[in-house]
Amino acid sequence: MIIDSHQHFVRLAKHPEVEGFRQAQLAGKNLDVPKISDADVTKSLEQVVSLMDSRKIDVAFASPRAKAMATHEGTPEQNAIWADLNNGLIIRACQLTPSRFAPVGMLGQHPSCPSEQVAKQIERWTKEGFIAFNFDPDGTGGRWQNQPFTGKHNYPVFEVAQALDVPLVLHGSESINKNFPHTAVQYLVADITGFVQLMMAKDLFRDFPRLRFLIPHGGGALPCQIGRWRAIAKYNSWASPDEILGNGNVFVDTCVYNDLNMQMLFDAVPLESILFGSECDGAFPGVVNDETHDHYDNTRRYVDDSKLNAADKARIYAANARRVYPRASRWIQA
Amino acid sequence: MIIDSHQHFVRLAKHPEVEGFRQAQLAGKNLDVPKISDADVTKSLEQVVSLMDSRKIDVAFASPRAKAMATHEGTPEQNAIWADLNNGLIIRACQLTPSRFAPVGMLGQHPSCPSEQVAKQIERWTKEGFIAFNFDPDGTGGRWQNQPFTGKHNYPVFEVAQALDVPLVLHGSESINKNFPHTAVQYLVADITGFVQLMMAKDLFRDFPRLRFLIPHGGGALPCQIGRWRAIAKYNSWASPDEILGNGNVFVDTCVYNDLNMQMLFDAVPLESILFGSECDGAFPGVVNDETHDHYDNTRRYVDDSKLNAADKARIYAANARRVYPRASRWIQA
Repeated sequence: MIIDSHQHFVRLAKHPEVEGFRQAQLAGKNLDVPKISDADVTKSLEQVVSLMDSRKIDVAFASPRAKAMATHEGTPEQNAIWADLNNGLIIRACQLTPSRFAPVGMLGQHPSCPSEQVAKQIERWTKEGFIAFNFDPDGTGGRWQNQPFTGKHNYPVFEVAQALDVPLVLHGSESINKNFPHTAVQYLVADITGFVQLMMAKDLFRDFPRLRFLIPHGGGALPCQIGRWRAIAKYNSWASPDEILGNGNVFVDTCVYNDLNMQMLFDAVPLESILFGSECDGAFPGVVNDETHDHYDNTRRYVDDSKLNAADKARIYAANARRVYPRASRWIQA
Repeated sequence: MIIDSHQHFVRLAKHPEVEGFRQAQLAGKNLDVPKISDADVTKSLEQVVSLMDSRKIDVAFASPRAKAMATHEGTPEQNAIWADLNNGLIIRACQLTPSRFAPVGMLGQHPSCPSEQVAKQIERWTKEGFIAFNFDPDGTGGRWQNQPFTGKHNYPVFEVAQALDVPLVLHGSESINKNFPHTAVQYLVADITGFVQLMMAKDLFRDFPRLRFLIPHGGGALPCQIGRWRAIAKYNSWASPDEILGNGNVFVDTCVYNDLNMQMLFDAVPLESILFGSECDGAFPGVVNDETHDHYDNTRRYVDDSKLNAADKARIYAANARRVYPRASRWIQA
């Protein structure tokens, strides 16, 4: 079995009525939430399912478009409605395509939104069937004006995430900061500070020993800066990268885009902490890698071509994902 | 010959009279610039020279302490005085220790400081003997409220840097943003957005074909995200990582801190674009790497232990640095 743990339903998010609703909402117009037809939902998935079939990917963990979360833009009330709309579409898409997808939610975060409200969203959506949630470590549109996400102000979120056994995926969103274009910089900055904040948060994993975080995009700079972070952790008495990766609290995915970068990931990070992911048809749809003459985002090739043995590949392709996302089982055919 | 292209005189910057002056200056007190004795300057270098001797490093390119640049704190006038004080100490330290150091300057940057003034500082200090300058791509203390550094507003700086043949080292400084602790995150964010902004700046290297930038810390996330950036560059029609590295405009140093990360750098970046660097006795003085039982910042070990042949090592140890920093020759014994 092959599970893609990192997919966004970008085409669904680009449905004109969905984008139109958000624009109108932010402009202060009081529109009804749009009702997207089953046919439109299914049609938006055609390309992704076809790519999954051709790449022999059985199941994908799918979440709303990361850029469109943009929770810095609305009020907490608007963002809760926006999250509900997106999550409602995600779960319908998963239900309309049985055994191919499992839903990962977005949250109506906002710097002024009490995290008790976000925790309640997690509870409600987990009951509906969600298996994990994207959690933006910024939430201020690339301005990074928030307090570090690991602080006590987010403990209500961490409590419910641990209690319900749903991992949090530390994923950035839209950036209005020109220094941080979203896919090329902001997402990686989120990965980097996300990982370092977890090293710095002395009490977090003592308070929540079973809390789990996923750092996407191959862990950001983790593979190529692990030596630096080991040294700094020792100098500052932070938890080392090895400690938080080795204790089953922190995981990374394989969303890196050539053979070399995939090998670097496997060389630097314990294999039990790596989950297959591709962002298939997401960040750069259709762009071809000159080395493979195939789409860059066909990350299966890079794992297949790696030096890992079959047992290790099987862990990365499915076993780790099933362990880290235990609620995925109900969505996956036995 | 072995040249360490990335060193900061941290102990000199921590001289009580130097730190005291900056504190008083920022508090609005009108102190005279302190006169540090030759004996104190020389003493502050003892540890570094001893480490260079034991590691058989002949020459280091030395600049003021990166964290202490902190140009977001003062006014443009205060920062110009602060840069003059630091640069004056650096060049005296280089003169007092003949043939061991070459001076790299800091600049009195500030979001409100016209870059014509910064350009004049470059001109003046280059005449004094400086071979390059640290250029902070942020300058707002980790808040990143500036316009991307590649914009036309910085063309006066780029004009003079190209004309005088002095490379600009894109180095971050102090961060007052708790999301970005300076050595663990802010410097890497500066590397990452520095590199990506250079990919995005369509006209920059057409307008300044001989302008050169150094991305420190092994290029930040470059080695482990080069696949992603190639894909995004193609998708957005930006210059590819290979283009800006291959045209002799962009270079990285070897400030990564274990064998694995050093090998990743050599695997991902063209060897003619890599300069030896160690930040010796800087970011985490005295911290020991359990893999080598030696200081983490003895990066010579990682280069020596790598699979590179002797000719390639010689390029990285000295030839590339002499080519990229042509003004270093007058400081280096033939």
